[in-house]
Amino acid sequence: MLIVSEEVCQEVIGRADAFTAVEQVFAAMSRGDAYNFPVIREAIGHADALYGFKSGFDRAGLALGVKSGGFWPGNMAKGLTNHQSTVFLFDPDTGMLSALVGGNYLTAVRTAASSSVSIAHLARKDAKVLGMVGAGHQSQFQLRAAAEQRDFERVVAWNPHPDMLPKLGAVAAELGLPFEAVTQQELGAQADVIITITSAFEPLLMRDWIKPGTHIACMGTDTKGKQEVDPAILAAATVFTDEIAQSVSIGEAQHAIANGTLKEGDITPIGHVINGDHPGRTSDEEITLFDGTGVGLQDLAVASAAARLAKEQGKAQEVTL
Amino acid sequence: MLIVSEEVCQEVIGRADAFTAVEQVFAAMSRGDAYNFPVIREAIGHADALYGFKSGFDRAGLALGVKSGGFWPGNMAKGLTNHQSTVFLFDPDTGMLSALVGGNYLTAVRTAASSSVSIAHLARKDAKVLGMVGAGHQSQFQLRAAAEQRDFERVVAWNPHPDMLPKLGAVAAELGLPFEAVTQQELGAQADVIITITSAFEPLLMRDWIKPGTHIACMGTDTKGKQEVDPAILAAATVFTDEIAQSVSIGEAQHAIANGTLKEGDITPIGHVINGDHPGRTSDEEITLFDGTGVGLQDLAVASAAARLAKEQGKAQEVTL
Repeated sequence: MLIVSEEVCQEVIGRADAFTAVEQVFAAMSRGDAYNFPVIREAIGHADALYGFKSGFDRAGLALGVKSGGFWPGNMAKGLTNHQSTVFLFDPDTGMLSALVGGNYLTAVRTAASSSVSIAHLARKDAKVLGMVGAGHQSQFQLRAAAEQRDFERVVAWNPHPDMLPKLGAVAAELGLPFEAVTQQELGAQADVIITITSAFEPLLMRDWIKPGTHIACMGTDTKGKQEVDPAILAAATVFTDEIAQSVSIGEAQHAIANGTLKEGDITPIGHVINGDHPGRTSDEEITLFDGTGVGLQDLAVASAAARLAKEQGKAQEVTL
Repeated sequence: MLIVSEEVCQEVIGRADAFTAVEQVFAAMSRGDAYNFPVIREAIGHADALYGFKSGFDRAGLALGVKSGGFWPGNMAKGLTNHQSTVFLFDPDTGMLSALVGGNYLTAVRTAASSSVSIAHLARKDAKVLGMVGAGHQSQFQLRAAAEQRDFERVVAWNPHPDMLPKLGAVAAELGLPFEAVTQQELGAQADVIITITSAFEPLLMRDWIKPGTHIACMGTDTKGKQEVDPAILAAATVFTDEIAQSVSIGEAQHAIANGTLKEGDITPIGHVINGDHPGRTSDEEITLFDGTGVGLQDLAVASAAARLAKEQGKAQEVTL
């Protein structure tokens, strides 16, 4: 059995690896070769923690396993990450544990890879301005991954707490991209691609602020009640997602579904676009929206890649169970 | 993070440790201090495998985690155990992975501890004859654990495949107990305590074969459709279980519930007896039945004990994630 530490994950998994792993597993989901098992998510009544599991099986990539972990809000005060997760991979031929992979860094890169795959397949080729809604830890991963998908010329950003923006600006500077803090309305008016990556429970962008041709990746909503954008945006957009079942229940689409302006049948798994079974964007005026809810199969895909690369590079610990 | 191998589990966890861990967690469940999360169980469509998770949190014992694994029917031909499982324990204060514990041996001892707890609390004190229905791998653990709970004078046994009985007989001989292969009717007529531990899908014991005062621990039924005894036995018995939700859906009680001869309210969590909130057996004529369905909290309880003992005895590997 292999042990792949957080540190080794950072050494072996780059953005290109994560992109490929996530793109392939979305394609496998679309073909019916990979599926997620039901998600377990429990408020355990201790340390205010949310704890649970995301799991699944990819028959094509032969990835079987579970990401376990959760959110411990008191961790920061102890010098630990609030989000804690670990991925366990099993040999699908025998059921034996094959690898234990640190999941904190991988969760960030697989989430960034997800919006990045959506930009690659759905954004206008000539997109120039990237709009970032949210400036927390995850937003930096999002910005780095998105910047590789189009020839962006600048970044505009908004965050509920403006004092967090300079950190994101530093990442833009590193990438050679001019960075400007703007209002939400300005962001909508200027951006060709928008990524929302917040923990909001109310719309941060309204329908009228968004210009035609925009691609929006909503990456923050992963729970009932969370919300980042006006449901009217989803009603106006062509809506794609990683997994429809999550999109309509815990994703950004939950609100437009609830108010009846969007139907489940209106939402397309992005894997269909990757596989060529759906055309994706069909005009320069079309608004496309990707509802990235985050599925267990993404975690298994990047963790499998990490285990393989760590082993090849002699960086995995081998232990016997 | 600690790694506790299958081998170390066998060295550090004895039957008394498993008994105490399981008895305490049943008591914690009864007090509302511990609860199981929903079970995930998937036929993954590969290698005919059944794969899934049992998980939960014990606020009293501070055990948080998951047992992951399943049933790979082709393993035996590869020299591996068909049932494969691993327990992952997390620190409830931080969410960090604290231990990875081999789960194959522990599953056997925690299941045996469960029937054993039921015998300790529900069987007649003067029980002399132990009846074993089933002679597979698990039955040997069941017999060893049961033998410690009463002054049994002999063992009678029946198995669908009689050729498997001598192995169980050898265990009885080791324990100094005379062993006899009998018919199902003879078993019912003679046994004061009966353990059923099979993978049957039909009743193996009928109501009329069971004598007054018998305690029956039904340990094999853990899936919809499985069945070991006549539902009329449950209708006639005082029924106890580890967890009512599982008992009525995937446990032995599912059949008596379905045919209306038993109501959910008739079933008592054995933790109530352990805590003194239910008298348990109230007469020498009463038939008591324990529906042992197997809950994740049992796995976490014995795995926590294994991790603690392995650490104390310097037998756990320490690795950094």
